[in-house]
Amino acid sequence: MHHPCETAERLVSPNHRLPEVIRWNALTRCVSILDQTRLPGEVCYRECDRVQKVWDAIVSLTVRGAPAIGIAAAYGVCLAARDNDSSSRQAVVAAIDHLATSRPTAVNLFWALDRMRVVLQNTPDDQDLLAPLVAEALAIHQQDRDLCAAIGCFGAARLIDERRVFERGGEPITFITHCNAGALATGGQGTALSPIYDLHAHGRNVRVLADETRPLLQGSRLTAWELQQMGVPVTVITDSMAGWEMRMGQVDAVIVGADRIAANGDAANKIGTYSLAVLARHHDIPFFVAAPHSTFDLELSRGDLIPIEHRGADEVRRGFGRLTAPADCDVLNPAFDVTPAELITAIITDLGVIESPTTESVAAVIARD
Amino acid sequence: MHHPCETAERLVSPNHRLPEVIRWNALTRCVSILDQTRLPGEVCYRECDRVQKVWDAIVSLTVRGAPAIGIAAAYGVCLAARDNDSSSRQAVVAAIDHLATSRPTAVNLFWALDRMRVVLQNTPDDQDLLAPLVAEALAIHQQDRDLCAAIGCFGAARLIDERRVFERGGEPITFITHCNAGALATGGQGTALSPIYDLHAHGRNVRVLADETRPLLQGSRLTAWELQQMGVPVTVITDSMAGWEMRMGQVDAVIVGADRIAANGDAANKIGTYSLAVLARHHDIPFFVAAPHSTFDLELSRGDLIPIEHRGADEVRRGFGRLTAPADCDVLNPAFDVTPAELITAIITDLGVIESPTTESVAAVIARD
Repeated sequence: MHHPCETAERLVSPNHRLPEVIRWNALTRCVSILDQTRLPGEVCYRECDRVQKVWDAIVSLTVRGAPAIGIAAAYGVCLAARDNDSSSRQAVVAAIDHLATSRPTAVNLFWALDRMRVVLQNTPDDQDLLAPLVAEALAIHQQDRDLCAAIGCFGAARLIDERRVFERGGEPITFITHCNAGALATGGQGTALSPIYDLHAHGRNVRVLADETRPLLQGSRLTAWELQQMGVPVTVITDSMAGWEMRMGQVDAVIVGADRIAANGDAANKIGTYSLAVLARHHDIPFFVAAPHSTFDLELSRGDLIPIEHRGADEVRRGFGRLTAPADCDVLNPAFDVTPAELITAIITDLGVIESPTTESVAAVIARD
Repeated sequence: MHHPCETAERLVSPNHRLPEVIRWNALTRCVSILDQTRLPGEVCYRECDRVQKVWDAIVSLTVRGAPAIGIAAAYGVCLAARDNDSSSRQAVVAAIDHLATSRPTAVNLFWALDRMRVVLQNTPDDQDLLAPLVAEALAIHQQDRDLCAAIGCFGAARLIDERRVFERGGEPITFITHCNAGALATGGQGTALSPIYDLHAHGRNVRVLADETRPLLQGSRLTAWELQQMGVPVTVITDSMAGWEMRMGQVDAVIVGADRIAANGDAANKIGTYSLAVLARHHDIPFFVAAPHSTFDLELSRGDLIPIEHRGADEVRRGFGRLTAPADCDVLNPAFDVTPAELITAIITDLGVIESPTTESVAAVIARD
């Protein structure tokens, strides 16, 4: 398949800027991480000068989104070599092992840490570690920008192919998305939102219904804010409204990101994604997953092998500083679910579009890397 | 069909008490209304001595749930005749008209107000109004207790018939419910929760997954609290988890209330109910609606004729006392959706169970009133 865009990091609109989620400061040798727990109220950065601070930032969801977690972890590894002394090599190994314990589901974390481990192994004992590690982290970051841009190209082209999505005349084309798989989740212009940004930049009349995404409201706090920054019309709905909006004929397509995709195309993503996929199927609405090749875990044959993170009960009971359930009430809080490949219309990757994903069609696209 | 329970208001368990939602105080001639906006943190009553206070209580969701709104409105009408003077008759007419504007979707409100209007019309001009109006309001309240109890009997018997629900051996039978259709929504032991209370009282091992029910969290704030009070095991989930729990095999049946049911069985209920019905169908899980005959609006042939209340955007944007979306962000907030009859396994009423509801099967059961 022809790769439609070899250039990276395009401006989506001259009047709007993507937020910068993670930044390596070469002077201070710190990682600046946009504190996403404070959005949309405050835009502020947390300065991380120690591995533990990056670990904390990942665990506390200061930085979240599968690709962004990988980038943050890569920079985090660099912090272990900050002093560039005789103990650095050991500290870097410990940092890689420690950062790998931060969150279990997103595979990009392990993918990025593996790349850092290879750099460590390839750096001779008598050579400083910091420079090659930082170079690799910057490369991972830059590559993610490219992956996002490629997903945007492939995705926009694919969505234009979806006749149903573009036969509505003057009305806006309405996408539902869940959680945040935008710029805030990546080093670039996002995964699920990337094709939407491209369509918007090309003058298409697009509109996004953003599921608020309980319990942590990444949709209403992050996706709505990010789309507003970028000038894309957005309407927040509670997760429970998606099905009804589909029934009312208000939805043309669903597009979401992924935290890990198994070899057969089963895709883990934020809890609630699976329900959206079932609802989309019931209403004959196309359901797209957008993710870079680094989100695929070809070692897992099926989605039910993907480890699912379960988070604390108080995220549900007191997520907003107020008690919203009996304080001792039993709660379930799986952070992710797995959408089986048969409910996925296509997976949009940086390497091409995988239609009706199966083990064979996934391998045909992803094996190219 | 034989009516299995002629006795009303049975104790569900000797150790547990149903909360009292509304109380007429004959001495002070006031209506006491449990303030459900403060639950689960505080249990306190709001004293209403004027019609306007009852109207406010309904609009602010201090009292909510279709049957409870009807009862509150009936008592509210009495307050207009509190002074029992020459202007009372006119004041009662105005009260009925005003209370009818409080909320549009639940038909029980109009049903109760119609009963109060008939009492007014049947009371001779030279007779005091307060006593007959209070008698009718008390009768509506007592009848609702009976309706709830009958729904419990019919529902428990019907659920026992559902082989799938009771073939699980020692494991608890797990119901998903949405919003609150329990004691807090009625004058008695609830509608959707009533059969569950009956099964629990008869020693069945039952368990409820309570959808938290965004935006106003009636599930986590009210249903979880009420079930805890009654000693029924309950686990809170976000609305977005229901589909995944179904896929994991954790759900035996869905049971919800209704705010208005059309002649063909289409049922309006809290937003999110429709999605649950689609998810239940996809997973081959039975989906039950429980409601008294007063919730049926036989004048509407189909559900798409039911007026749907749209509420303010800040219920979604700042529902937890904290800004959880951009302050100026566009929001949809329909309070209800309509589940088409074809997705409903059966409607459990006080007059019997309507299997696979259609205009004919609804008429066969509801026309008996």
